[in-house]
Formats: sequence, structure tokens, C-alpha cells
Amino acid sequence: MQRARRGIDVQDHEFDEIDAIINAGSMAIVGASGVPMKFGTYFTGVQLSFGFKGPVYLVNPGEKEIMGRQAYPDLRSLPEAPDIVYITIPAHRSMEVLRDCAAVGVKGVIILAAGFREAGEEGKALEEEALRLAREGGFHIIGPNCFGIYNPRNRLTLLPGYDFSTTPGDTAFISQSGGFAAHVARLGKSLGIDFSAVVSYGNAADLNETDLLRYFTRDPHTAVISGYLEGARGGHDFVEALREATAVKPVVIWKVGKGEASRRAVITHTGSLSGSAEIWEALMRQCGVIIASGVEELCDVLLALKHIGRDPGRRLLISGGGGGLGTYAGDLAEDEGLDVPPLDGGTLDNLKKILARPGAVAGNPLDIGAPLIPLQQFEPAIWEAARNASTDILIFDMAVNFAYDLAGEAGLDLATDILIRAGRESKKAMVVVLYTRSCDPDNLTAEENLRRVRWKLLDAEIPVYPSMPRALRAIARVNSGA
Amino acid sequence: MQRARRGIDVQDHEFDEIDAIINAGSMAIVGASGVPMKFGTYFTGVQLSFGFKGPVYLVNPGEKEIMGRQAYPDLRSLPEAPDIVYITIPAHRSMEVLRDCAAVGVKGVIILAAGFREAGEEGKALEEEALRLAREGGFHIIGPNCFGIYNPRNRLTLLPGYDFSTTPGDTAFISQSGGFAAHVARLGKSLGIDFSAVVSYGNAADLNETDLLRYFTRDPHTAVISGYLEGARGGHDFVEALREATAVKPVVIWKVGKGEASRRAVITHTGSLSGSAEIWEALMRQCGVIIASGVEELCDVLLALKHIGRDPGRRLLISGGGGGLGTYAGDLAEDEGLDVPPLDGGTLDNLKKILARPGAVAGNPLDIGAPLIPLQQFEPAIWEAARNASTDILIFDMAVNFAYDLAGEAGLDLATDILIRAGRESKKAMVVVLYTRSCDPDNLTAEENLRRVRWKLLDAEIPVYPSMPRALRAIARVNSGA
Repeated sequence: MQRARRGIDVQDHEFDEIDAIINAGSMAIVGASGVPMKFGTYFTGVQLSFGFKGPVYLVNPGEKEIMGRQAYPDLRSLPEAPDIVYITIPAHRSMEVLRDCAAVGVKGVIILAAGFREAGEEGKALEEEALRLAREGGFHIIGPNCFGIYNPRNRLTLLPGYDFSTTPGDTAFISQSGGFAAHVARLGKSLGIDFSAVVSYGNAADLNETDLLRYFTRDPHTAVISGYLEGARGGHDFVEALREATAVKPVVIWKVGKGEASRRAVITHTGSLSGSAEIWEALMRQCGVIIASGVEELCDVLLALKHIGRDPGRRLLISGGGGGLGTYAGDLAEDEGLDVPPLDGGTLDNLKKILARPGAVAGNPLDIGAPLIPLQQFEPAIWEAARNASTDILIFDMAVNFAYDLAGEAGLDLATDILIRAGRESKKAMVVVLYTRSCDPDNLTAEENLRRVRWKLLDAEIPVYPSMPRALRAIARVNSGA
Repeated sequence: MQRARRGIDVQDHEFDEIDAIINAGSMAIVGASGVPMKFGTYFTGVQLSFGFKGPVYLVNPGEKEIMGRQAYPDLRSLPEAPDIVYITIPAHRSMEVLRDCAAVGVKGVIILAAGFREAGEEGKALEEEALRLAREGGFHIIGPNCFGIYNPRNRLTLLPGYDFSTTPGDTAFISQSGGFAAHVARLGKSLGIDFSAVVSYGNAADLNETDLLRYFTRDPHTAVISGYLEGARGGHDFVEALREATAVKPVVIWKVGKGEASRRAVITHTGSLSGSAEIWEALMRQCGVIIASGVEELCDVLLALKHIGRDPGRRLLISGGGGGLGTYAGDLAEDEGLDVPPLDGGTLDNLKKILARPGAVAGNPLDIGAPLIPLQQFEPAIWEAARNASTDILIFDMAVNFAYDLAGEAGLDLATDILIRAGRESKKAMVVVLYTRSCDPDNLTAEENLRRVRWKLLDAEIPVYPSMPRALRAIARVNSGA
């Protein structure tokens, strides 16, 4: 039924319709409340504290005032028709609200409640009724069974998004799972990945992965599209949308539902049919999609795309203090289809001179020696390594509380500055593996140091990973044909 | 040459010889110094601050006093023959010290310096000479090119081990790499894994993996043996030692050297020949070794062994707040050869009653609903899940700053206490995946909460992992035949 609406000329029309929802200028929250432990209370508080840029109308027939603001008994009583309506009340009571939405003329409705198609026959009938009301009323639905929209430009946020970043970015994330939508937004914040928008679309009764993919393909704010998918409806349309998207922007997809238990969970979660894992994988590869598995891996890939881009090359120079590291990283590179080629002759000769000391090994992997390397040797060694012609990416393994003690308190920051300068002036890609080997529960100094250095590196456009396996996996993923 | 020494009756003799080194009661540090940026200074400071239980003699012909202690010109001037001698001076100057060791009659010598076999022909000759001197002098060598011994009972520690745990435990770790020896010791500390000993043995000129494996197989302090290996000498003896070990204790091995780059690194690192990855893997499987890849995975396995033991079962009940989680974990379980079977009928009926609310799904995976579940529902749901008869292990996914807000500040700790009680009284294995979704660089509250809750769970003998992939991998590994 939905597909029937769509013809060639409907495309841009649909872009505008979705755009009006994601970039809404006014909203109403139906079920807004100030009573503790209620869904509507939590959601109202989150949206108000996130600072939505436009009027927020709170609707609850049982209240006169909520959180110091006027409350309205229903949508018909509002001074204007809001662009979007968030419905936070239970499923069976939502139909009446949808009729009001049609009556006042809104652009979009986000239904947070579960209890629709994923819950069985009764819920399925409710969901069909909701879709019918939306069609009649000329508006779109996001959800039900979702956390909504996060858009830092107009300051919309997800149900649990009170602490999301307010900095607009160029990465879009679409997700059937609300939990993972929130998780990716938070992880992104911690890594300096900013979003054009995150859409948790749950059961996809109306707007689904295909619609959102098309929207973000055209969205000028979005440079990278990412998604968590449990399945997809409208097979052919979806594949076409995927191809369209990958032709103009990198697309990163985490698709779940491989095994029997996982598929069982998909059905009870958002009611999707997930399809065979093999078919999905082949399809995504054909379309040039970057495949990610898991929330960490997805964010790791987004971070690599942000700083070293698509196809940065597979030839790694692996460096750090300690020889075990090189053997380990060499194994991992092999597993990921990456190369650790011998050093360029000139680089090798120069490194041999700089690192003429026991415990250091000039080569690839490059062991600069640990834990006692003086910065006077570290600096030229890193400069040589950064410029090596036979490799594309310099990887530096950096333990915050281990290798730099000897330069005193400031050693860690001095080493960081050296890395940043070498990366900038060599104009070659650099990736840092940064971690603390100290996890003392009563002493957070190492953790503080780690966070400070991580931000310094991220600000200098050097992607930072907590472990070598994660760094190498991300590099492998952003290279085509991985 | 070494193997020729060994007959049936030599076995216990060799145990005593190694035991006298690891449990040494006195030591000398040759090359001890107080001059900043020197190897010997760092090492002296580390040993003194770690509090070795016995006399520490500092030897340096150029000093009268080091760090407020008397300095001796050479080993012959000491008031007694120390059990062990740490040599911290460069390779070429060590031979004279070894002659002194023979003259005064020590039990063991640990040579920290690199520049031996791994460095080429000249170094190889030095290493052979060192071994000859040890044989003649009747003592053993650990190293060269190593970080030494960590033993919390007599307070020996590794070169970078100033902050290691002082609590004795029952896990042994042997490692060709000094860096990974230190890394595992520190990670272990952060996870409550305590060690009987860690031995960084570097080039293994004398005592090697086979000797150490045999020693820890017999060592009454050691219940679990783990190791990082780049290779092994004496093929048949090593395999025999592996079989002997796995017959009485779990043995966890991380073997590197799969690819070409990695093998190149092995040779320059400790001069080992690593052998084919396939042969190693087949051999380790035949011997019943638990195979781990990487430093995190090794520690994850040690943590699982400590709390849920060998062969805890493959049938998982995966629970947490959110439906996406279940689909994700279901996929991972499939990849790891673990089962997520349907719930026992009685458990399912009870959970349906307890969780009769939209957003929660009684089943396996079990979605207890998020982010708003009241603890009054959480508690009976977890109790039911912990007792479910059709599964062996309850996995709970816990975001420290997400799901428990509604119970106020104390919600997280209350939820933790509920998990601990349910685990204890059900007497079934429980595993918690614990993480923070907030990484604000200016706010470490979530990190503090995470560390507090992690220790609470670890103290209650519940293993804690930072991500679902790592938890499931560890569970898969400790089950036989993985």
C-alpha cells in the first residue's frame, strides 16, 4: 500500500515530508507529565532539558501545568498545529490522538509505545489502524515502538537522550532498535563523531529503512549514512535505495538476525522478518556497503571514515614500545587482510641509526623500545615512520601509564604532541591505539590522562582505538572489498 | 645441550631449582643506580618500592650509596651469596658478572638486557657464553631480554611492575614478551585475578616454556597456567609438558606468529622460530589447551575460569533492558557455538506474569524493558531468570548510566545487589556485561560508578566483561572443544 504511493515524482515530495519531521520547528508531547516514574514524565524532561528550538506543547487532559509550563487537554486546544507530535501514551489509547493529529494537520507523529505489531494479533490490528489514520490525515509516522529522532540542529532528542551532544555533524544513523540508537549516539559523542540525525524507527509501520535511506542520501547535512537493521521490507526498493546511497556516500550497516535465537528476538522486538544472513551479506557487499558487526565496531568504522576516509590503503606500519606488540599486531593484520610490508630502504636505514640501542628494533613492526625511550629518540623515529613511503597508515600503540614515565609527568603529552605534528606534516594517515594498563578502582588519574590525550588526538583528526584488534578491524572495514 | 641434563630423576631436582629462583629470599641488583633515566635506576626503584621480603643488595662499582642504601662494588663483596641476581647492565658487560655469580654460588640469574641472540651473530655468541657460564656455575638463567619475575608472595616484581597487586593468587602466567607480562599482570589486577607468579623469560637461553610449564604444573600455589608464546623449543618435550599440565590444571595459551610480518617480528623480538599456525592450533587442541588470542581475550578467559570454571555449559539465558540487545547477543552466540534455548515452561509463564508490560519480552533473549523498569519488577524477573532450568548461565547486560535512573541515585547499586543475591541463591553461573554509555571527558562519575559496581560483582564471584562479544567469547573458550 505504501509503495503504491510512490512514483518518480513522489521522490522529492517524500524528501520534503520527511525533512519537515526531522527538522521540525514545533512539537507537542501527548502524555506529557510531571508524575515521577511515568514514561511521559521522563520523555518531557528529556526534551525540555535538551533545549528544543521551537515551541514544545505539553498535552495531558488531567493536568493544568507540567514542569512549570501550561498543559493542554488535547491537540485541538493548542494555539497552532505543531509540526510533529510525540505520543508517549500506551498503544490502545493512541488512536484517538492520531484522529486529532489528522484534524489539526500535523506533519509527523512519533509513537514511542510498544504493544503494536511485535506484540501479536491485537497489536498488529492497532498498527494497521494507525497507518490508515496517518494516510487519511496526510502525515507520516515514525515508530511505533521506538525512541524517536535525535537532531542536534533543532535539538530534538531520543527518549533517553538528555546528555547527547548538541554539536551538529554529518553522520546519519538509522536504527530499528531504540537502545542501540541511544548507544551509538553516546559512543559517538565520546569519540567526537557528530550526527546530522539519528532516527530510531522501531516497527517501521510507515517510514522504514528504505524511506530513511533515500532521505539521508539526499540530505545535504549528511556525508555518511549508517544503520542498525533487523530486516527490511520491500526488497527491491530497499536494494535500489542502497545502491543509490552508496553511489554518493559511504554506507555502514550492522545487520543482525543470523541465528535462530537472534531471529526469535527480532520478531518479538520489532516484528521484522530478518532474512538469511548469507543473502544479506552478499547483497550488502554487492552494493558496496561497509559491513559492521556490533555497536563498537560500527562506531569504530564511523571514526575511521571521519579521519582517514574511505579506502585509506591496506599497508600498515605498526609501531609502539615492545616487541610482543608487533607479533600480535602482525597476526591481527594477517587475519584482517591487511599488509605489514618491509620498510622503505631509506626509512629503515634512518631508523637503524636513530634506534641504535638494545631493545629497539628498526623494521615493520617497529619496536621503538620500552619503557625507557627518551623523547629525543622518539621524535625522530616517529617522523621517519610517519613518512615511510612503502606504507599508507602509521599505527602507534600507546599505553598511557607505561612508556613515558621517564620524561616525567609531561612525557605523555609531549609524546602526543610529537605524534600530532608528525601526522600533520607528513600528511599521511595515522591511527593511535590508546589504553591504560592501570585500572586501580581508587585512582582515576590514568583514566583522566587517557581521556585528555584521546581528545587531543581526536581534535587533531587522528582516530583513536582502545585496542589493536579494534583499530585493525576498522581499517580493514573502510577499505573497499573488505 | 640443556635437554641432555634431564633424566627421570632430574625432574624434581629441577622443580626445586626453579622454585628457589621464583621464591627467592634474597637478591642482588647488578647495575643498580640512582642516576635518572638509567635502566638500573628504574629497576632498583621498582623492586625497592614493591617491598621485596628479604635483603636487596645493590651492586655498582662506581657508587657508595644508592637510594639511601649501601652500594657494593661487586657480587664478591656482598655479606652473603644472594639467591638471585638481577643483571641490569648491557649484554657485553654481563659475562664478568656471570663469572662472579658462579664464584659466589647463586641459584638463579635474571638478565634483563636485550642485545643477545635476537640481535644477530655477536649477540648469539654472548648468549651461548652466558649459558656455558651458568652450566659451569650451577645456576639457571631467566632471560636474557626479559622483565624478570613477579611473585606477590616474596614481592619480586617485573621491570615495570611498581604498581602490581601484592595479593597472592593461583594463576601463573609465563611470557616471552615482557610487555605482555606486565600488561597481563596489570589487567589481572583490574579484574581481581591474582597471580601465583608471572615469569617474563625473553630469549629463553636456559629456562624455557617447557621448564616453566613443568614447574607450574607441580607448583602447589598454581591452579591455572597461562602463557604468551612466540614459539617453543624441544618439540616433543614441550608437547609432553603440555599434556602433563592439562591433565591436572586448566592451561590457557595465546600463541602468536601466524603471518609473515608477525613471524618477522618474533625473530627480531626473542629469536624464536614460531612454527606453522595450523600445527600449533591442532597441537593445542589435541592437548586440551584453551586457546586465547590477544591480551584482553587471555584475561577474559582467566576471569571466566576463576568464577564460572572449566566447562560451565553452553546454554545461555541472555537478559537485559532492550530488544536490540537480544538480537545482537543471539548473533554472537551463534558465531561462538553457544546456545540460546527457549526458556523452561515454568520460567516463561512466571516471567510473562511479572513482565506483563509493553516494551518487555518474556523469552530468551529476555528483554526486561528499558529504560524504565521498576526494581519491584526487576527483582522477581532476575530471580526467575537465574533459576531457569533449561540454561546454564544467566548473562545480564548492564549499562551503568542508562537503565536504573528511575530508582534514583541508588538504583544502580540496588540492581547490582539484586543480581548478586539471585546469583548466590540460585547457585547458577551468572555473567554481567557492564559498561557506560557516557564518556564525557569532564565527568568521571559514570566511570566511578562502573568501577564500584564492577568490584562489587567481582567480589561476589560474578565475572564482569565490558562488552557482549568479549563475554560470549570467554564463555565459549572455557567450554571444552571450543
